[in-house]
Amino acid sequence: MELSAAMPSPSTESAPTERADARGVLEAHGALARRYRQVRERTERLLAPLSSEDCQVQSMPDASPAKWHAAHTSWFFETFVLAPRLAGYRAFDASYAYLFNSYYDSVGPRVARDRRGLLTRPALAEVLRYREHVDRHVARLCAEAELPPELCDVLEVGLNHEEQHQELFLTDLKHALAQNPREPAYAPAPEGPRGPRAPRAPAAPLAFVPYAGGLVEIGHAGAGFAFDNERPRHRVFLEPFELASRAVTNAEFLEFVRAGGYAEPRLWLSDGWAERERGGWSAPLYWREQDGEWSSFTLAGRRPLDPTEPVVHVSYYEAEAYAAWAGARLPTEAEWEHAASGVAPDGHFQDSGRYHPAPAAHDPSGRPAALFGDVWEWTASAYAAYPGFEPWRGSLGEYNGKFMANQMVLRGGSCASPAGHLRASYRNFFHPHARWQFSGVRLAR
Amino acid sequence: MELSAAMPSPSTESAPTERADARGVLEAHGALARRYRQVRERTERLLAPLSSEDCQVQSMPDASPAKWHAAHTSWFFETFVLAPRLAGYRAFDASYAYLFNSYYDSVGPRVARDRRGLLTRPALAEVLRYREHVDRHVARLCAEAELPPELCDVLEVGLNHEEQHQELFLTDLKHALAQNPREPAYAPAPEGPRGPRAPRAPAAPLAFVPYAGGLVEIGHAGAGFAFDNERPRHRVFLEPFELASRAVTNAEFLEFVRAGGYAEPRLWLSDGWAERERGGWSAPLYWREQDGEWSSFTLAGRRPLDPTEPVVHVSYYEAEAYAAWAGARLPTEAEWEHAASGVAPDGHFQDSGRYHPAPAAHDPSGRPAALFGDVWEWTASAYAAYPGFEPWRGSLGEYNGKFMANQMVLRGGSCASPAGHLRASYRNFFHPHARWQFSGVRLAR
Amino acid sequence: MELSAAMPSPSTESAPTERADARGVLEAHGALARRYRQVRERTERLLAPLSSEDCQVQSMPDASPAKWHAAHTSWFFETFVLAPRLAGYRAFDASYAYLFNSYYDSVGPRVARDRRGLLTRPALAEVLRYREHVDRHVARLCAEAELPPELCDVLEVGLNHEEQHQELFLTDLKHALAQNPREPAYAPAPEGPRGPRAPRAPAAPLAFVPYAGGLVEIGHAGAGFAFDNERPRHRVFLEPFELASRAVTNAEFLEFVRAGGYAEPRLWLSDGWAERERGGWSAPLYWREQDGEWSSFTLAGRRPLDPTEPVVHVSYYEAEAYAAWAGARLPTEAEWEHAASGVAPDGHFQDSGRYHPAPAAHDPSGRPAALFGDVWEWTASAYAAYPGFEPWRGSLGEYNGKFMANQMVLRGGSCASPAGHLRASYRNFFHPHARWQFSGVRLAR
Amino acid sequence: MELSAAMPSPSTESAPTERADARGVLEAHGALARRYRQVRERTERLLAPLSSEDCQVQSMPDASPAKWHAAHTSWFFETFVLAPRLAGYRAFDASYAYLFNSYYDSVGPRVARDRRGLLTRPALAEVLRYREHVDRHVARLCAEAELPPELCDVLEVGLNHEEQHQELFLTDLKHALAQNPREPAYAPAPEGPRGPRAPRAPAAPLAFVPYAGGLVEIGHAGAGFAFDNERPRHRVFLEPFELASRAVTNAEFLEFVRAGGYAEPRLWLSDGWAERERGGWSAPLYWREQDGEWSSFTLAGRRPLDPTEPVVHVSYYEAEAYAAWAGARLPTEAEWEHAASGVAPDGHFQDSGRYHPAPAAHDPSGRPAALFGDVWEWTASAYAAYPGFEPWRGSLGEYNGKFMANQMVLRGGSCASPAGHLRASYRNFFHPHARWQFSGVRLAR
Repeated sequence: MELSAAMPSPSTESAPTERADARGVLEAHGALARRYRQVRERTERLLAPLSSEDCQVQSMPDASPAKWHAAHTSWFFETFVLAPRLAGYRAFDASYAYLFNSYYDSVGPRVARDRRGLLTRPALAEVLRYREHVDRHVARLCAEAELPPELCDVLEVGLNHEEQHQELFLTDLKHALAQNPREPAYAPAPEGPRGPRAPRAPAAPLAFVPYAGGLVEIGHAGAGFAFDNERPRHRVFLEPFELASRAVTNAEFLEFVRAGGYAEPRLWLSDGWAERERGGWSAPLYWREQDGEWSSFTLAGRRPLDPTEPVVHVSYYEAEAYAAWAGARLPTEAEWEHAASGVAPDGHFQDSGRYHPAPAAHDPSGRPAALFGDVWEWTASAYAAYPGFEPWRGSLGEYNGKFMANQMVLRGGSCASPAGHLRASYRNFFHPHARWQFSGVRLAR
Repeated sequence: MELSAAMPSPSTESAPTERADARGVLEAHGALARRYRQVRERTERLLAPLSSEDCQVQSMPDASPAKWHAAHTSWFFETFVLAPRLAGYRAFDASYAYLFNSYYDSVGPRVARDRRGLLTRPALAEVLRYREHVDRHVARLCAEAELPPELCDVLEVGLNHEEQHQELFLTDLKHALAQNPREPAYAPAPEGPRGPRAPRAPAAPLAFVPYAGGLVEIGHAGAGFAFDNERPRHRVFLEPFELASRAVTNAEFLEFVRAGGYAEPRLWLSDGWAERERGGWSAPLYWREQDGEWSSFTLAGRRPLDPTEPVVHVSYYEAEAYAAWAGARLPTEAEWEHAASGVAPDGHFQDSGRYHPAPAAHDPSGRPAALFGDVWEWTASAYAAYPGFEPWRGSLGEYNGKFMANQMVLRGGSCASPAGHLRASYRNFFHPHARWQFSGVRLAR
Repeated sequence: MELSAAMPSPSTESAPTERADARGVLEAHGALARRYRQVRERTERLLAPLSSEDCQVQSMPDASPAKWHAAHTSWFFETFVLAPRLAGYRAFDASYAYLFNSYYDSVGPRVARDRRGLLTRPALAEVLRYREHVDRHVARLCAEAELPPELCDVLEVGLNHEEQHQELFLTDLKHALAQNPREPAYAPAPEGPRGPRAPRAPAAPLAFVPYAGGLVEIGHAGAGFAFDNERPRHRVFLEPFELASRAVTNAEFLEFVRAGGYAEPRLWLSDGWAERERGGWSAPLYWREQDGEWSSFTLAGRRPLDPTEPVVHVSYYEAEAYAAWAGARLPTEAEWEHAASGVAPDGHFQDSGRYHPAPAAHDPSGRPAALFGDVWEWTASAYAAYPGFEPWRGSLGEYNGKFMANQMVLRGGSCASPAGHLRASYRNFFHPHARWQFSGVRLAR
Repeated sequence: MELSAAMPSPSTESAPTERADARGVLEAHGALARRYRQVRERTERLLAPLSSEDCQVQSMPDASPAKWHAAHTSWFFETFVLAPRLAGYRAFDASYAYLFNSYYDSVGPRVARDRRGLLTRPALAEVLRYREHVDRHVARLCAEAELPPELCDVLEVGLNHEEQHQELFLTDLKHALAQNPREPAYAPAPEGPRGPRAPRAPAAPLAFVPYAGGLVEIGHAGAGFAFDNERPRHRVFLEPFELASRAVTNAEFLEFVRAGGYAEPRLWLSDGWAERERGGWSAPLYWREQDGEWSSFTLAGRRPLDPTEPVVHVSYYEAEAYAAWAGARLPTEAEWEHAASGVAPDGHFQDSGRYHPAPAAHDPSGRPAALFGDVWEWTASAYAAYPGFEPWRGSLGEYNGKFMANQMVLRGGSCASPAGHLRASYRNFFHPHARWQFSGVRLAR
């Protein structure tokens, strides 16, 4: 996922008749304003436990400082909503256009991505004032009687954008804290239904659920929000396939490790093996073995490896090698989406406060369990344009399209995704060597 | 294309009933032996104009020395044909198993790819003796009455493998010669129908040929040779599309250059722009501008840019940026193959001795011209397994499958491919930044 | 200068008779305790204007975060004074031994130098508590009646060590702030005798002061504090030489720039030219040209270049190239020290609060002016052991000796050095490509 | 040693009165012409056992292909002798000025050093014709009646330059052959007085020879040839010192290896330790341990380590760490030269055909043995200008001066140096991490 977002798809904008009477509009405004407040407050709640120092650091070029996430998401509203739409709006600080642009070439030049951690000024406190400033002006805009549909659409994009950054915030923070030899915790692990660290029964045996395939449709359809890369809905022909009933667990992945999976090049893609050697990988990111005991760093600190949880923080290469070893393969994104259509996008998300996958669920009905939440599931599909893909118009056209090379699609969201953010057609994407995301493995065959 | 090849797919080819009576077998043996000699001799003809020094050098990690190509292709026959099949065969030199293995982990360790140019011993002369030794033993094997079908299959793989290396030989040699400030020629440009360097009429205007799409089949079918990655034949659903009547020409690409295409990040994929900056690209590889005149390095030396020839030596990123600028896109490999099915795989290949694309052809019937030969055509498809893909059995299973990440498919062959090597289902693949191949652009929309 | 310090040289320690009666000891203790407080408070005063974020950042591997400087200097006292000498002392935090060790292999492993900026915990506030904890215990130790001479010596080392870090703090901070596109100031430039930014007369013309040379002595002699690398005092034979009356000014260096000095390889050392190309140098660090006007970034923000100030932030390579261009050379360290002997180590130091060199001084007596302070002066001498050099005993032996390769000696201190820290025999040292120090040029011939 | 050479120092040599009458001149011409032939033929004899491939390869940026050495030494005579001095001389090939210039900025641009191995054209045969062409014209020049003294001087520089390249040829070739897994030999080890590989008595015990020091003179004096960096002769004050009676042997160095010397950072310079980690050093270059037996690659192939030979192929860092471990130090170059003055520069040089150090010699008179030949001896002195140093005039001024940074001086020559090339004042120099030279260790204290 390359973050910072985009304009509504062509059709919705131009369909004013779908937007009903004035009263409906006002209610819609009210709902949008409420959602705006909720999303923005969630970001600030996530920041609350951290010191200014925690929010400053950038632990690698791919990750961004927490402070930068907080500022950039505000810059997004300022740039795409306030500046063009609120008469007389004056930027909070002219330099922010340069400091907090992520990658919008059409908006202008910017600080190089790997130098975000060098910006000690503005301080976190000033960034929080910036957020407040932007919020006050968005509220003023929302209070206006006539909120044009396109504007609602861009606001909705901005909110989805901020939700994506909420996940990245947790992901990047975890990486940053893990660099500290003291391995500090971000938040204690909550007790509760999916949380306690007590001994528990092994995960349900892995089963494969059959699908007949045929000519199916994937991609977003209907009126709700979706990113441009989920469109248009289109037909795909699928051979019959089977999808695993749950994600691969730590216990299963540990078997692969112990069987020498990281020492056998024949299991790996050629580029994957090279990456393994470059990085010295011998287990998933954040795993460590000491005196025969395996543990894993989590946002609640280092903990013994729970065999029943889905494995997380594996690259595409590791997922693929595991599948080869297990005599299976990864699903394509079309297979995954087909299996997920009609399934409610419920699951274990960020709002649990656990920030770590929960033990593997089991669906007694025999359907694949936990397709949504817990861990992003790598697919065998390279991220590419759907037939007839049209990027959003204007600068927001840079949101998704320009990343369509060298990345693999992940589906389903994770324990770090905000609840309500996911849907069956949602496409996340990362380079195949990326491991710092909450990414796991679901097999197919 | 990652080179060095593989065993036939499990069942279909080995059906003995397809292989007729003893007489037919003998004839088939004769044909195979003849083809073996032809292919091997072609390699030696390609080497003939070069000095030992020319054959020694490795100009970058992706390229291999000519001497290495000559030895490795022989190692292939020695390892996969002679050692397992010819009773009492003794290796020409035991160290060659290490020196000339390309990437077969199941065969054993080997010299690192980027160190092939450091092997001054064996000298070229010894490698030529090695070739002769291998040829003599293969001939002896072929003279045996009972040549089992599987062995014929592996021999056929070896010949296709050597043909691939014949193209790589030219490609790598061109890169090596281009490093020399004197820019020496490999061979003079032949005169003839497609060759002369005289002023000529502009290429025919670009037209787009419509296809209805629908549920089509792609992949190799039938009895002839094909690589494992071309199988199995399977159904794909295509939306209606249009394919360009010819490849993009130098004249057209020069317009893109002059319009500032290399200075406008909004036209480029994000990874492509980064690569452009890293490499300082401002035009296709081997192009140079001096006093307003553009020229290009060819295997016949540096020549003025011919506006009517297809542009060649562009990366996927450049192809994609050009397409964006031209308001079009690249075809998917399924679209390309669908358009090419039923078209005879004729075209301008290596055997012309020109080693450079010929001026763009035009098909008066209105169909896409020159789908085969001249330049490899980048597709928008990432290189991936077809549904139900099964790698060849044994070591040859490493031929293709392990490269299915981060590479894009190219179709159609080039002026450096041996005639007879191509077919509609043939899939070549390279990383999207690769430019030293004879790769060009055909648009779709 | 590689920072973090060391034990007194063998002889002084063992000369108890030099340390007089009990009363003198008590007075000495009092003076030492007072000096301890002064030095420690100065560090905290330097930190005061900064935010937690400012103190967190590490702008390059060679630089350290301000917070790290504050912690490491305390770790030094904890490790070399409190732990071995104060009965029952308990470390403030056991993990600090790992986090804040700089390079003492004999003390134990440590955070890699280029990862200091990743330590968001402990926060600055906790580090300040750490300082207080250490100070309280050192005070308790000093209050004891019997403070053995060796302990006084180590305390003195610790104070000199902290003074070195005070300079590094400013140097590293300047580099960090300069990475911010807003170029924020650390502190406003003070007005006053050497400070105002008013137009002024050009610097006095450069003159060369002759010295007869001969067999002279250099190195530290006598009872005061000195680092081990300044010892032993020894004889050196000098040919007659001349030393410049003042440092090279910005006006003079700008002439070199304008004359194409950065484009002429023949003026440069071979390694220097390679470094120039790698770094894209075209002027001293922090200089910038806009519309024909040159400015320089200072700790008071960006300011127009003052032609009368000494040039600062040049590497050894630039100093050497300038000297070649000017038909002169750099002095050896022996020449410099010989010229500086008998000169009081006064000058423009950190305590002015200006943190930037002052306009070039002129000594009406005709002697070289401002040998001390303003800018460190590169010498032509590689940093090496004096004949008979003995490193301090124990861990502090790692203070200086292990850096005796690839570095050049600088002399005289700078506007960032604490007053009272310098002397004629003082040897600073940096790699010849280093530019972020307050380093300048004095010519010889 | 940075190779390719320079003009005599301004005044002294050109004193015509020292050059006597016409007859003497003619005889001198004859001697010079004879010496020219001998030196040039030696280069060709060294090349004779090699294939074109062997002469083509460049195994690392610091090394050059044998073919390049052969061409560059001829370019030197063409550029500095023939072009300016022989009326009507026409260059053999105009492109060679670019291809075979090493580093003379004042002569013009050139192929980047790390790309010399990419020049497959001209082939070796053409380079040999180039040599012949140059020789023929030099002979014609020498036949002229009036050969001005300056010209003789430049010819002498060119011959010394070629002798330096003869050593580099062997050094670079050894590195290239060592990259081949087959570890081919260049030449068989000759039998003879110093050669046989029979069991032999241990080296004589190491003794230290005392010198009183005082005010001594070093640097070249008198009429014979010397490089500019050996001048002027000047006074240096030396403390009393002791120099080892012989170089450190393999047996002694192996003790260091076995005692964990490569695992103990406290023995190493800080930069040295970093280099050790970067390179993964655990023994001298070309050493290998297998089943408890140590061997070393030589130009006669891999051989068991001879405990009595001087250790060779160690970097300055390893030499320095060894000395620290042995409780000694390396000599300064002034100490070394002082000890070597008056000693005839005899020793074991290239002309033995052994190309490997001979077992440590012992001087029964108690003086340091084998100061010349066998292994270059690292000194503790950084390579710098002598007081009053004047580079040769013109382009040859680039011969030595621009390398005076980051390099350490070595003295005495090696088994790869041509006999007659060395003298007590001769200064060789390399970066402290360089290990591919025939460099060893002599201790001092």
